[in-house]
Amino acid sequence: MEQMDRFEQVEYGQAGARQALKIALAQIDTCVGDLSGNAAKVLDFAQRASREGAQLVAFPEMALTGYPIEDLALRGTFRRAAWDKANELAAQLLEQGLGELFVVVGTVGTDHSNDLPRNRMVVLHEGAVWGAYDKHFLPNYGVFDEFRIFSPGERSVVLNINGQRIGVAICEDIWQDGGPVQELAGRNIDLLLTINGSPYEEGKGHVRRDLAARRAREVGAPVVYVNQVGGQDDLIFDGGSFVMGQSGDLLEHSPQFVEDLSYWTLAAGQGDEAGPEQMGSQMAPDLDGDEEVYKACVLGLKDYMAKNHFTGVCLGLSGGIDSALVAAMAADACGGEHIWGISMPSMYSSDGSKDDAADLAQRLGAHYDVQAIEQLYKTFQSQLDLSGVAAENLQARIRGVIVMAYSNSKGLLALATGNKSELACGYSTIYGDAVGGYAPIKDLLKTRVWQLARWRNAEALAAGKSEPIPDASITKAPSAELREGQKDSDSLPDYELLDQVLAAYIEKAHGRADLLADGFDPETVDTVMRLVDRAEWKRRQYPLGPKVTALAFGRDRRLPITNAFAE
Amino acid sequence: MEQMDRFEQVEYGQAGARQALKIALAQIDTCVGDLSGNAAKVLDFAQRASREGAQLVAFPEMALTGYPIEDLALRGTFRRAAWDKANELAAQLLEQGLGELFVVVGTVGTDHSNDLPRNRMVVLHEGAVWGAYDKHFLPNYGVFDEFRIFSPGERSVVLNINGQRIGVAICEDIWQDGGPVQELAGRNIDLLLTINGSPYEEGKGHVRRDLAARRAREVGAPVVYVNQVGGQDDLIFDGGSFVMGQSGDLLEHSPQFVEDLSYWTLAAGQGDEAGPEQMGSQMAPDLDGDEEVYKACVLGLKDYMAKNHFTGVCLGLSGGIDSALVAAMAADACGGEHIWGISMPSMYSSDGSKDDAADLAQRLGAHYDVQAIEQLYKTFQSQLDLSGVAAENLQARIRGVIVMAYSNSKGLLALATGNKSELACGYSTIYGDAVGGYAPIKDLLKTRVWQLARWRNAEALAAGKSEPIPDASITKAPSAELREGQKDSDSLPDYELLDQVLAAYIEKAHGRADLLADGFDPETVDTVMRLVDRAEWKRRQYPLGPKVTALAFGRDRRLPITNAFAE
Repeated sequence: MEQMDRFEQVEYGQAGARQALKIALAQIDTCVGDLSGNAAKVLDFAQRASREGAQLVAFPEMALTGYPIEDLALRGTFRRAAWDKANELAAQLLEQGLGELFVVVGTVGTDHSNDLPRNRMVVLHEGAVWGAYDKHFLPNYGVFDEFRIFSPGERSVVLNINGQRIGVAICEDIWQDGGPVQELAGRNIDLLLTINGSPYEEGKGHVRRDLAARRAREVGAPVVYVNQVGGQDDLIFDGGSFVMGQSGDLLEHSPQFVEDLSYWTLAAGQGDEAGPEQMGSQMAPDLDGDEEVYKACVLGLKDYMAKNHFTGVCLGLSGGIDSALVAAMAADACGGEHIWGISMPSMYSSDGSKDDAADLAQRLGAHYDVQAIEQLYKTFQSQLDLSGVAAENLQARIRGVIVMAYSNSKGLLALATGNKSELACGYSTIYGDAVGGYAPIKDLLKTRVWQLARWRNAEALAAGKSEPIPDASITKAPSAELREGQKDSDSLPDYELLDQVLAAYIEKAHGRADLLADGFDPETVDTVMRLVDRAEWKRRQYPLGPKVTALAFGRDRRLPITNAFAE
Repeated sequence: MEQMDRFEQVEYGQAGARQALKIALAQIDTCVGDLSGNAAKVLDFAQRASREGAQLVAFPEMALTGYPIEDLALRGTFRRAAWDKANELAAQLLEQGLGELFVVVGTVGTDHSNDLPRNRMVVLHEGAVWGAYDKHFLPNYGVFDEFRIFSPGERSVVLNINGQRIGVAICEDIWQDGGPVQELAGRNIDLLLTINGSPYEEGKGHVRRDLAARRAREVGAPVVYVNQVGGQDDLIFDGGSFVMGQSGDLLEHSPQFVEDLSYWTLAAGQGDEAGPEQMGSQMAPDLDGDEEVYKACVLGLKDYMAKNHFTGVCLGLSGGIDSALVAAMAADACGGEHIWGISMPSMYSSDGSKDDAADLAQRLGAHYDVQAIEQLYKTFQSQLDLSGVAAENLQARIRGVIVMAYSNSKGLLALATGNKSELACGYSTIYGDAVGGYAPIKDLLKTRVWQLARWRNAEALAAGKSEPIPDASITKAPSAELREGQKDSDSLPDYELLDQVLAAYIEKAHGRADLLADGFDPETVDTVMRLVDRAEWKRRQYPLGPKVTALAFGRDRRLPITNAFAE
């Protein structure tokens, strides 16, 4: 409670007779650093919203800069360019006859007391920056590093528009108790508007909506929740924007994984006076778990390609389930004709594997090349004479060289096909099958890989199309085929069991004693812990090196990979 | 000032007549997660300190757990094991007749109000944990992520020992104004004792000592500063522990880059009463810049090998300066006989390069193998028919496969030889010359590489030994030798200029306008910015992938690579 004293209460605009306010929820996909591209998209959506009669259009958190911008926020020239772009955008809106529209958009600001960046919402109106709010709660758990980068805001802001009092918040501000939202509860607001860059996790939509329902009750007003959509590096933003009534009814729900512009009108009357809360322009159904995760993976790949200027991909096709699912996802992301599938059989590859790889490529309409590795392997072995695991790794690394040759010579994004179970256990070859710029299924446990493959085939059948993934790839026993008769089960526990242990050890951070209490047998626990603990190095793949200057690559420099800013 | 109200003032022990107190500064090298090994080292140093008459021995921040422990702190079983180990250590000290000794050591604790970890100092005495203090200021800039992981302490602690009042602090607590140290200034202390895990940066020793002098004035008492030594993953801790008198005189200075046990006695009298402040047991001289950085790199490699159980290394020897300096560092870290140097000439390799590589290996006493890549290259090309950069990369990747074959078959740590200038500009081949588990010079700009090579040779001559690095490797024009007549200067600005731009762009985060104001010409600025911005992906080398579960690898899971904990 004592924290509340610290907030400065700010109002923009004048009180007046309450009138209905048509609000557009602009769920857009931005690119970090691409100020011009992002501003052009804001302008386009603002025009569309205005044509539909919207008086206020809200864009996601940091939509102008892209999100998350990581240490790019620390670059002064970037912050100045973002400020200039916001003003230029306001002027363009006015020029194009959209001066009366209130455009709420996230960007980066500067705390001039310490020259640190701020996570800022601005309101563009009548050719100028009319209002501003800075995010107060700066998450620094999980994928977030905001407390490291930004200075927190100290104001609680109400926008007076059409006689309606609109309290504002940015993302984490509604996830934490107290702070500006608690203060807004005492300021008689008619609406809580929150703009968000809320990264996707399976099933998170329900969590967000339950939270919004709670906040709606607390502030005594509906909540408009606008979320970013799209992939940015390894994060996916799923959209799913919505309006939550103060009685806990969902009034609008935008679809996940696509850009969207939906509408909802804040009525002239308030509370009982307003009568039943009105419905918005659409109510997208919830997706089932497998569909949601599959679409997340496809969008992540599609946006990674687009934002890094790749139009095609290449990958090794082994005939196994992992490369088959990745290829199916790639076909959904960029079309089969933009896929180069490479079969790289060795003396240990079964005919079945080769047939399944060719079958897959044909189903997807992908380019398909066979690059046998036997002669290459023999040439290496005539110099190196390797045995055991070193000889197995050699096969995988020859394949890595071939995949990268396709990538370099044709300008293709190389896809790595490793799944979370094998990466966790180090059951892959560094610089071998782990080669690639993007790994579409690296966060899927092996049992989930099978499940998604089955879901994708079933979905195709249900739509009257042919199944993209050969049934044999789904049903056969997994093998790396790096020696005669090899099976994954020679080295790893059964995947059904392994995945349960991994979920507990990695995702719940259970230690050995916890895992035994979970009911897993000691031998399995010790095997999995040993494998996982040893695999950290392999998973990173890049060489560590000593830090001897003030700013080295790696630990203390965190830049987005996809970054279109060049000033 | 208002923050001070929040501190609880805690005292341990009883006031009494002031007596002299002999303090040991135990500057030790620990391993993250290795509770048993670290505890054994604490016991050993405590025994040695006691034999020399010390009544208090101070170890670095988190010495019992190793530092930095990153997300390992979040594992409950680890925190319980650390608590058990501290109590076991206290009991062992008592058993071995060291019960009267006060042993100050850092470890991890738990904030039971929220089950979050704390960065804790404990005092072991008479078989028990006698006192405890929790770090208040949790850095989360640069290499630090402590605010993410730990809950901050709320106490200001004074230890009463021998009638002396000892205020305590952990590392960042003395770097920030206010907080517990400011509070200690009003508590009439005789000594400020701080335990630290302060990562090395070139020239940081002076900064630490200037800061300590300021704090000594503020609290009106000398400062004992004990720092960790050793490499942990990509961080290096340089030791250089010291005692700073309240008049700003350095009273003791431990050497950098080695474990050390030094002594200093806090006199019975205080201030004027004490007379001139007494000197400690040693006063290590400051190292010059090149020697300091060279030793830092050697220690980083040596500890990375030891803590990851490698006894030897392998690397490609091109005859160029980068691989020559790395090999010289490796010889200093593990001895030439544990180095496998591999010359991998192609049709583009000059005779000079081959001779220089052989010369280097001979000077260092390293194993030396020649693995020509021409036949391998032809075999690949008969299948792939690559040209341009793809053909150049193929050569580098064949070499990468060979280096990894040595690593796998002989159990050697593969060293990558890239320097900071070429890594920054992406002037290297992913999965090619960038292959390796450790990159000893990845934080050295190219001009610094030449400088350190000259320093190392001069140092050898001064010691009456032969120069480890062939002069030709230092003086010739740098070339990747991936096509006929290729020179680095074909693709990159002159290194003298390039390194200045890189220092401004990377280390000072200067943007384009800033760089022009720095006086660099627009063409160079644009070239360097384009190269650096495009190289982020290449530098990381591992495939990104979408995050779809609550806890994926990468962004939201930060574990140390070297980690000996398995419970």
